Amino acid sequence: MTTRKAAVLVAGSWGTALASVLADNEYDVRLWTRNAEQAAEINQLHTNNRFLPGITLPEGIRATNDIADAVMGAELVLFAATSASMREVAGKAAPYMTPETLIVHATKGFEVGTLKRMTTVLAEELPVDPKRLVVLSGPSHAEEVVKRQPTTVVVASESLEAAEHAQDALITPFFRVYTNPDVVGVEVAGAIKNIIALGAGLTDGLGFGDNAKAALLTRGLSEITRLGMAMGANPLTFSGLAGVGDLIVTGTSKLSRNWRAGSMLAEGLALQDVLDRMGMVVEGVRTTKAAHELSRTYGVVMPITEQLYKVLFEGKQPIKAAEDLMGRLRKHEMEDIASP
Amino acid sequence: MTTRKAAVLVAGSWGTALASVLADNEYDVRLWTRNAEQAAEINQLHTNNRFLPGITLPEGIRATNDIADAVMGAELVLFAATSASMREVAGKAAPYMTPETLIVHATKGFEVGTLKRMTTVLAEELPVDPKRLVVLSGPSHAEEVVKRQPTTVVVASESLEAAEHAQDALITPFFRVYTNPDVVGVEVAGAIKNIIALGAGLTDGLGFGDNAKAALLTRGLSEITRLGMAMGANPLTFSGLAGVGDLIVTGTSKLSRNWRAGSMLAEGLALQDVLDRMGMVVEGVRTTKAAHELSRTYGVVMPITEQLYKVLFEGKQPIKAAEDLMGRLRKHEMEDIASP
Repeated sequence: MTTRKAAVLVAGSWGTALASVLADNEYDVRLWTRNAEQAAEINQLHTNNRFLPGITLPEGIRATNDIADAVMGAELVLFAATSASMREVAGKAAPYMTPETLIVHATKGFEVGTLKRMTTVLAEELPVDPKRLVVLSGPSHAEEVVKRQPTTVVVASESLEAAEHAQDALITPFFRVYTNPDVVGVEVAGAIKNIIALGAGLTDGLGFGDNAKAALLTRGLSEITRLGMAMGANPLTFSGLAGVGDLIVTGTSKLSRNWRAGSMLAEGLALQDVLDRMGMVVEGVRTTKAAHELSRTYGVVMPITEQLYKVLFEGKQPIKAAEDLMGRLRKHEMEDIASP
Repeated sequence: MTTRKAAVLVAGSWGTALASVLADNEYDVRLWTRNAEQAAEINQLHTNNRFLPGITLPEGIRATNDIADAVMGAELVLFAATSASMREVAGKAAPYMTPETLIVHATKGFEVGTLKRMTTVLAEELPVDPKRLVVLSGPSHAEEVVKRQPTTVVVASESLEAAEHAQDALITPFFRVYTNPDVVGVEVAGAIKNIIALGAGLTDGLGFGDNAKAALLTRGLSEITRLGMAMGANPLTFSGLAGVGDLIVTGTSKLSRNWRAGSMLAEGLALQDVLDRMGMVVEGVRTTKAAHELSRTYGVVMPITEQLYKVLFEGKQPIKAAEDLMGRLRKHEMEDIASP
């Protein structure tokens, strides 16, 4: 039996975790990174300590700095770049693919400026049949995946065949993969939940309790659902793993960057100070700007996004934003769920 | 202006917290308890240390052992008894009501044996117009409510007028109350989420991570939604505060009795030992039995309820139940959400 080859771009925590799942399924996995030291560490020590400290990786993962070496001959190319670098990474990988290469991406966010979804960016950059594009999402801390703790995710594609191909490639006894035909819903849910995680950090930072956070997540879910529906998504997707599932894991964890950024904002730090202290990308901040524009484009009222936008970009006091959310005059819940 | 009178039955943590909300709204509140010492403590020290340790209650709450004194002349009677004692408490209160008394209940569970919802039990026992019955539910730890931390709940009634009356009686700047017309949905969601909380304690006790718990809550939500729909509920209710909101607050908190019971089961204790150690009612255990019967009555497949039933009542090993849930052959998420 010939070993199948898979490429994973890039070697952040999520890319590395998904590479370990593919290695568990006996793929010959090439993990691409621009960083030569990181590649040497992965190949020699089988660790990636910057992103997954203290964890030993499967030996089936081979890191490389050469994207041609990574992608050429791969049956499956899995993109886990940031939303900001997706187009550039796809452009670099494109020359080494065929129209039949299966493309899976696991990136949550919209492209800055264009507000395009990640599958749209990939379709524009890659020479593959758009039906070979799959998005993977769901409640999945990378640390738990690489430790083989039980995890469930969805893979969505316009083509059931492509989704099932990705499912077969990634499913293990610990990593359960469900297919879903709703690419738009899965991508919108994954992107917008980072905003709600930022809001959850903010309410926690203000000293509010679990009741307030559950309310925020619930109202956040209906806000995400309304935007998704306006963009053509199936509302049921938001009740599934990529919707409520991911919202729960992101919104109730204190490990996420979005949560930490929200909590620092609540303590009175300005956005630039928060970003300086974090020293890395906070997807929720970029996504708040994107969602604020999308809410206007599609005419969807998004009260949580609106208040966070004011806190992040207009200097509004977090406590004032929280009060304005609590004090909304809405009286009937169904109105709020169906149309705000 | 005449002070309005409200009665709250009984003085557990949730009844006492809701009594404090009514007191904040300047009701003359009578909190009924069978326990004379507890009544004296509430009246003299303004504490209820067994249920809400370390918290000072508003002075507008007066406890009484005399149910006639509590209920007679009350504009609003709020029931927060256990599901097992609801019928008996309602029977005791009935003689002192008029057909116009507004009845709100805040109890989560079905009646043992009959599997009736709480509004059905109340309608059978009370001399009031069934349109005066309201159910209150949502993500609301009692401790946070009595400390005036921001909380949102729903009140559901067949009559919008009754729901709005309850809303006006209970709304404060910290306790936001939304109306919802779906009595069945709100009651089913509130009852069944205790099962999922038990399951969350079980997965945590088995050493699984946040990914597994988020998956359990997501799959649990679709299971609850399917049962609710079969019983006549509006599916949107399960996306709201009484559905996903309450599921998040119960499923991610380690304070709940259901969570603790599940976690002890995972450690290998038998059900009777768990109940002996808890020394109090675990609603999720009773509700698992009830939901197991309802799933048969209504022909709804409920895999999580089924596995928990086997663990609780048939001695199945928790790890085996978890494996059987993970290993289900379902491949397409939409099938699972819509019909399993």
